[in-house]
Amino acid sequence: MSPLGSPPKRQPSQLRREIEQQPDALTTLLALGRQAVEEAAEAIRRFNPEFVVIAARGTSDNAARYAQYLLGARNRLAVGLAVPSLFTLYGSPPRLDRALTIGISQSGQSPDIVSVVAEAGRQGGATLCITNDPESPLAAASQSTIAINAGEERSIAATKTYSNQLMAIAMLSTALQNDEERWRELRQVPVAVSEALRMNMGLEVSAPFVGASRFLILGRGYNYATAFEIALKIKETSYVLAEPYSIADLLHGPMAMVEKGLPIMIVAPSGCALEKVSDYFGEFERRGAPLVVISDRNDLLDRAQSPVPLPQQVPEWLSPIVAITPGQLWANALAEAKGLDPDAPRGLSKVTLTR
Amino acid sequence: MSPLGSPPKRQPSQLRREIEQQPDALTTLLALGRQAVEEAAEAIRRFNPEFVVIAARGTSDNAARYAQYLLGARNRLAVGLAVPSLFTLYGSPPRLDRALTIGISQSGQSPDIVSVVAEAGRQGGATLCITNDPESPLAAASQSTIAINAGEERSIAATKTYSNQLMAIAMLSTALQNDEERWRELRQVPVAVSEALRMNMGLEVSAPFVGASRFLILGRGYNYATAFEIALKIKETSYVLAEPYSIADLLHGPMAMVEKGLPIMIVAPSGCALEKVSDYFGEFERRGAPLVVISDRNDLLDRAQSPVPLPQQVPEWLSPIVAITPGQLWANALAEAKGLDPDAPRGLSKVTLTR
Repeated sequence: MSPLGSPPKRQPSQLRREIEQQPDALTTLLALGRQAVEEAAEAIRRFNPEFVVIAARGTSDNAARYAQYLLGARNRLAVGLAVPSLFTLYGSPPRLDRALTIGISQSGQSPDIVSVVAEAGRQGGATLCITNDPESPLAAASQSTIAINAGEERSIAATKTYSNQLMAIAMLSTALQNDEERWRELRQVPVAVSEALRMNMGLEVSAPFVGASRFLILGRGYNYATAFEIALKIKETSYVLAEPYSIADLLHGPMAMVEKGLPIMIVAPSGCALEKVSDYFGEFERRGAPLVVISDRNDLLDRAQSPVPLPQQVPEWLSPIVAITPGQLWANALAEAKGLDPDAPRGLSKVTLTR
Repeated sequence: MSPLGSPPKRQPSQLRREIEQQPDALTTLLALGRQAVEEAAEAIRRFNPEFVVIAARGTSDNAARYAQYLLGARNRLAVGLAVPSLFTLYGSPPRLDRALTIGISQSGQSPDIVSVVAEAGRQGGATLCITNDPESPLAAASQSTIAINAGEERSIAATKTYSNQLMAIAMLSTALQNDEERWRELRQVPVAVSEALRMNMGLEVSAPFVGASRFLILGRGYNYATAFEIALKIKETSYVLAEPYSIADLLHGPMAMVEKGLPIMIVAPSGCALEKVSDYFGEFERRGAPLVVISDRNDLLDRAQSPVPLPQQVPEWLSPIVAITPGQLWANALAEAKGLDPDAPRGLSKVTLTR
């Protein structure tokens, strides 16, 4: 007990400290990474791929989802997510000789991700990796490497490496288009992330959410990735079944589950995807589902039991890098409110070696 | 009340009747569909696509997951799942002129799926649809059509149209390879499905599962699709949060959630994917998670609180068409054990028009 009988002040978790390092990590990548990104973009332009395949797992797979939307919408590249078990389990890889194959992995250690990239290179395809360790086996297997420069990440639940993976993808898309206006927008991101953190510094998770054993996490478009990544943070640190869903798929089944007491988190930054998201608010309210809303729009925040504000005027294509940070804070706060240690997820380790 | 005071015998649900129609529906497709499949295969061989994109939602998206593995492993085609909102929300479709784009939809009505296929055709790409309605807008927008010949499906939760979509994909893969041995294997499927239904006719769902509000559903390889589809059936009819996961991704986060009282369903037919699946049984047992096991292997069935047997000697590439059927029976039985009507999922309708 502390001297006056008040509860002892909790040390911030390692997870929380790394969440707060994100503006600096993003600034570092913007400063140090541009040359490697421009070189990778030049190699890709020369190769002129017909399509893109991304191999990734866990958090990195959510970064791949962002790339699907961004490289599709801005660079007209069809992006598919690789099926590593075709390479490892079934020994029958698809043809990738006209593809750009990208491996994304924080550690660069995962044997199955390395297998996909190595095979693509053997077939004569273009290969690139996005990793925090440019000395890793994944980097060794790739023709081009973008080091995300996030610094050491000690927390098992990835945070700053995720936002730096998104930034690396956004830089690559921008370099492929060679668009200085987009570089200018990119340089605003660290400030917007700082602002999003500041706005939610004192975020606490209240009763209807602390006791819940399940959540629906909704997003659409660019922020489909954000919904997946927040769901993963909640699963890793609070052991709660948080299922990510695209709003577009909600009526293909899962809407049946929505009921009183099933909390719904809605990732809703301004943009094209927003109209579709807000269409469903009325139905959620009628069914009595408590809402967490992550948005820059006050009219939507006003409808939430747990409003999570975002800074305004972030371009939609960059909104996932900003919107993830209060989502991470929310997951950290949920774990702490449940009396769990977000730094010690049971049964997980930092580097996962899927074969 | 019935005369002797015993509970009235329940009429089988429409869902249950359609589950039982699957052997006949598969037989019909094998008999009637081969010519259309051979013609589609010939058009694809002439076009010689660099890659494949599949546009689908809900149950049809799970059939697309099967196609990812099958066309990858057997036909060396890299298959990606389309991002329809690039076409509808962001108005910025990727280049598909060297792709085969496949639309899968029971009704053939969904405007966003039609948009993807129509745009691919405009770009000069090859297009194909797999649908239960060859007069639908999707068929009108596609260069080739494979009608799945499942007959009218009245239940909101799709069953026989799913297994016939899988069969259509398996037939297409076989025709692309022009392999009579594989056609012979295909013709064994309706009998194996009959046998799987017979083995599980009296299937009942017991206490630890009836009260659960959440489930993990695990599969890998070809049966990753099966895990997704069973999870969707459970969500649609029992309003339970059933989350599908690949065994390969389990250690990238979700393993943290596994605990006493979280039921885990494991789709585990014999094959390459099985070794990886069975690796985790010990850990699930240590943590006290009650297990549902769908398998042809008695040693695995013996470890389940709810064993769901499959017939033996089904080739792995066809096992999803067989393994889904007891999964559907299980979902139907769960809904009935919870006192819900599987024919009337709240908030859903048969045809979903996502734009």
